[in-house]
Amino acid sequence: MTHLDQQFEAFKNESTEKKIEMFEMDGKLFDMIISQQLSREVLEELYNLTNHLRRMGKLKEGLDFLGTLLSHKRAMLYFEQPSSRTFLSFLNACHILGLKTSEIRDISVSSEVKGESYFDSIRTFSSYTDLVIMRSKDKDAAEKAAWLLNTYSNRPVPIINGGSGADQHPTQALLDIYTLMRSFSNQGGLDGKTVMFCGDLRRGRTARSLAYLLERFNDVKLIFCAPKEFQILDDILESLDNKGVKYEVITESVRSGLDRADAIYMTRIQDEHDLVAGESSIIDISKFKLTGEDLKYMKPGAAILHPFPRRDEIATEIDSDPRAKYWRQGRNGMWTRVALIAYIFNLEKQIMGFDVSKVDHLR
Amino acid sequence: MTHLDQQFEAFKNESTEKKIEMFEMDGKLFDMIISQQLSREVLEELYNLTNHLRRMGKLKEGLDFLGTLLSHKRAMLYFEQPSSRTFLSFLNACHILGLKTSEIRDISVSSEVKGESYFDSIRTFSSYTDLVIMRSKDKDAAEKAAWLLNTYSNRPVPIINGGSGADQHPTQALLDIYTLMRSFSNQGGLDGKTVMFCGDLRRGRTARSLAYLLERFNDVKLIFCAPKEFQILDDILESLDNKGVKYEVITESVRSGLDRADAIYMTRIQDEHDLVAGESSIIDISKFKLTGEDLKYMKPGAAILHPFPRRDEIATEIDSDPRAKYWRQGRNGMWTRVALIAYIFNLEKQIMGFDVSKVDHLR
Amino acid sequence: MTHLDQQFEAFKNESTEKKIEMFEMDGKLFDMIISQQLSREVLEELYNLTNHLRRMGKLKEGLDFLGTLLSHKRAMLYFEQPSSRTFLSFLNACHILGLKTSEIRDISVSSEVKGESYFDSIRTFSSYTDLVIMRSKDKDAAEKAAWLLNTYSNRPVPIINGGSGADQHPTQALLDIYTLMRSFSNQGGLDGKTVMFCGDLRRGRTARSLAYLLERFNDVKLIFCAPKEFQILDDILESLDNKGVKYEVITESVRSGLDRADAIYMTRIQDEHDLVAGESSIIDISKFKLTGEDLKYMKPGAAILHPFPRRDEIATEIDSDPRAKYWRQGRNGMWTRVALIAYIFNLEKQIMGFDVSKVDHLR
Repeated sequence: MTHLDQQFEAFKNESTEKKIEMFEMDGKLFDMIISQQLSREVLEELYNLTNHLRRMGKLKEGLDFLGTLLSHKRAMLYFEQPSSRTFLSFLNACHILGLKTSEIRDISVSSEVKGESYFDSIRTFSSYTDLVIMRSKDKDAAEKAAWLLNTYSNRPVPIINGGSGADQHPTQALLDIYTLMRSFSNQGGLDGKTVMFCGDLRRGRTARSLAYLLERFNDVKLIFCAPKEFQILDDILESLDNKGVKYEVITESVRSGLDRADAIYMTRIQDEHDLVAGESSIIDISKFKLTGEDLKYMKPGAAILHPFPRRDEIATEIDSDPRAKYWRQGRNGMWTRVALIAYIFNLEKQIMGFDVSKVDHLR
Repeated sequence: MTHLDQQFEAFKNESTEKKIEMFEMDGKLFDMIISQQLSREVLEELYNLTNHLRRMGKLKEGLDFLGTLLSHKRAMLYFEQPSSRTFLSFLNACHILGLKTSEIRDISVSSEVKGESYFDSIRTFSSYTDLVIMRSKDKDAAEKAAWLLNTYSNRPVPIINGGSGADQHPTQALLDIYTLMRSFSNQGGLDGKTVMFCGDLRRGRTARSLAYLLERFNDVKLIFCAPKEFQILDDILESLDNKGVKYEVITESVRSGLDRADAIYMTRIQDEHDLVAGESSIIDISKFKLTGEDLKYMKPGAAILHPFPRRDEIATEIDSDPRAKYWRQGRNGMWTRVALIAYIFNLEKQIMGFDVSKVDHLR
Repeated sequence: MTHLDQQFEAFKNESTEKKIEMFEMDGKLFDMIISQQLSREVLEELYNLTNHLRRMGKLKEGLDFLGTLLSHKRAMLYFEQPSSRTFLSFLNACHILGLKTSEIRDISVSSEVKGESYFDSIRTFSSYTDLVIMRSKDKDAAEKAAWLLNTYSNRPVPIINGGSGADQHPTQALLDIYTLMRSFSNQGGLDGKTVMFCGDLRRGRTARSLAYLLERFNDVKLIFCAPKEFQILDDILESLDNKGVKYEVITESVRSGLDRADAIYMTRIQDEHDLVAGESSIIDISKFKLTGEDLKYMKPGAAILHPFPRRDEIATEIDSDPRAKYWRQGRNGMWTRVALIAYIFNLEKQIMGFDVSKVDHLR
């Protein structure tokens, strides 16, 4: 254990508030490491920025302008874990802003195999680039990287957490919130709505971290719908209790919650986290899938989300229903990441100043 | 089997004409899936476009202009099968037009390993980008992708087939035809010429699909030269019979056809498709290789092609002979792909309007 | 063995002078293959160019200008061996100059697996691009590539050796020399200084090739510090004797040389080259590591270098000491590669003509 490891252990035990501060630069979000950094105010700002960016994205001159903003900067995508979706979403987000990109997707080509410490690897990568986006098995990896650079580098670059272990995946939470806000933009917004989660709520980090962010909205009610083996853990419920957020836990079937849900957030069974091989497969989840038949029981203005990849949690017949928002959820993921990177590099004014009046408002 | 799979099975059995129509947008080629889409008219247009592009490629201002044309667009290369040549050729073609690129070359990082359907993967990838170029083991993969997006996406992006299974590789056929047309540009063109194919004609998709496209030219005669075990299959011969195309089948040696061949198209033995390991190695192919000695027996204006990679089908002594066209065939591959992408994105007029008069005509 | 292999074998035995000439174009360095090509004059020119580039790198307009210089060119990185550091350094160097890049990092996707010769692969890759940067196990790989293209291609592109076997790694030597020159810029330059090498001097190619380049400086004295099992081989010492360069060989401990060393070049044990598994681990190297304690024994103006990755040769406590130059050595690696590529493409005048007077001089 080097003295850096020791120092980081001390930092790890700091309060969330202390950490949020460490991840800021000049009082503004700089590293994007944990969902807790996303205040309601930041979420609203990123929401507006994303909407504006999407309209710019419909114009060649809009895209060409965006492509000049960070044309002098370089990003590094350091993806220790396989992930095509998050990877491609970030990569294309970088390209929209003109960032040049380099990638490490195969850990076996990394210097870490030659015995290099993680800290040395990060400091080296960061020295070539202006932004590091990372995904890793180690739940502390992104936090470690941000801590190291902010503490020791005289040229710290922002770190964005693209998913670390089973823990945090803040840009997924961001895109989910954006999609919810967008889906209800003609229904008075997300405040006051009921969001039902269905599937593997125990192990899926997306449902967990989205539940956390929904606390930032007023009068949101949550429904947790899963067989008892996959139900949400008590720590989340306790957190909701403490904040006074209303929720309901149902273990019967997805249909039993459809009449009350404004949004239905489906997730797949995370059997890659099975402790005993096959333990998930013996649990009956047949009643926790959405079929074409279920559409009849949903509210007319409901929104169906899924972080994808999906297996058969949502029948493909539903794909063409206007309530299916999961395709645009994916594309929103790219645009919210453009917004986040632009925000970190202080480009909000330049972007919001671009005239998009000739582009129709978003649907 | 989802309802999408069922619907695709129905489409698969449609006539070639129906398919060609499905792969068009506003009456023009949009997806490039099967060689049959390449009419004589399209081939001539791409030929002229490629020639113009190659001359632009000799000027910094020409290349800089090309680099602005699709600078606001992003392409995705989804290569399930190892292929350095086709991959690099497409990637550099994209870069010439200013397209930003992202790649999946290792299927193990794809979401398909998490149980996602192929249809979902394609729809996701397409949502981040403006063009998908793909290579796959499944012979229907590209067709499936184009069908899905044209049927269900409200933002379909063009699909280009970079080789699917043992079946179709339309851009290889395109570059071969271009190289033949170019090689005979001072000899009255490709009409009326004799093209000899030599090597593994039974399993090599390039020879098969090129033979097919040659039907679009007048009075072309074909010679199929291979040991009987590797000879062309009857379906091709029947198709030629139906179209009234003359051909000859020889099983003696490559030399026995050299006096009549204007073009000699060499191919390697595709032993990766052996059903029994080593079955190819017991067949004597020594008389179906080109040696330095053979040059004496060739026509002075002959053109030697090879889709590459080669093993020892063509002795390296031949590389410096002016009749060896296989090096420029490779480079032509990149430029015909630039032309194809430009054509799909309706850039012909902008490109042909660029003044190249200060560049020498191509050799 | 083809006739190309035979011809190359003949070239391989040519004198270094003949080779240096072959790697030139119009009397100037074109391919960067062996360290011996780096004369004192070239080193000084690249030193000045790097300094200027680094100042341009602090301005958006400087970076945007650099990004236009080779925006019409494409580079290929062909890395047969895992290497994240060298790879990323080169890739980002290319991006700074606007070069579009394509990569082969996994040899299993190369056409070589289909039986293609190395010569054919190189000629193909070079036909798509304007620059090939390569790293390989075969110590002759880069030399072979440069020889082939200069001899046979009518469109040769420059080859840069990014490390070949245990032999040559000229851009590592270049960045090391740059860092030394830079470190002593306020102490009268590198002439007359004492450089101590410590670690695995027998097998580490960086120490060996840097020792070689130091002969170009006046009155440089070298100290080779290692346990006898890892000491420098006699061929280097003989070369130094022949050139009249002074040196000292010590086998006691790193500390025993600290009082005399202006620069301390640490290296790790290259146990991946062990002939018998574990043979390195039984040798006591505890006295050949730098600890925080050692700082007291070093000259106040000393410079500590390390080619990285490091294990525990340098305690992390030293990282914050102003004498630790290894972090900026890494970043210098990227900028010296920008300089080298710019030099090969004859961009010196355009770069040196860019006004950087508003940027502070480098520390």
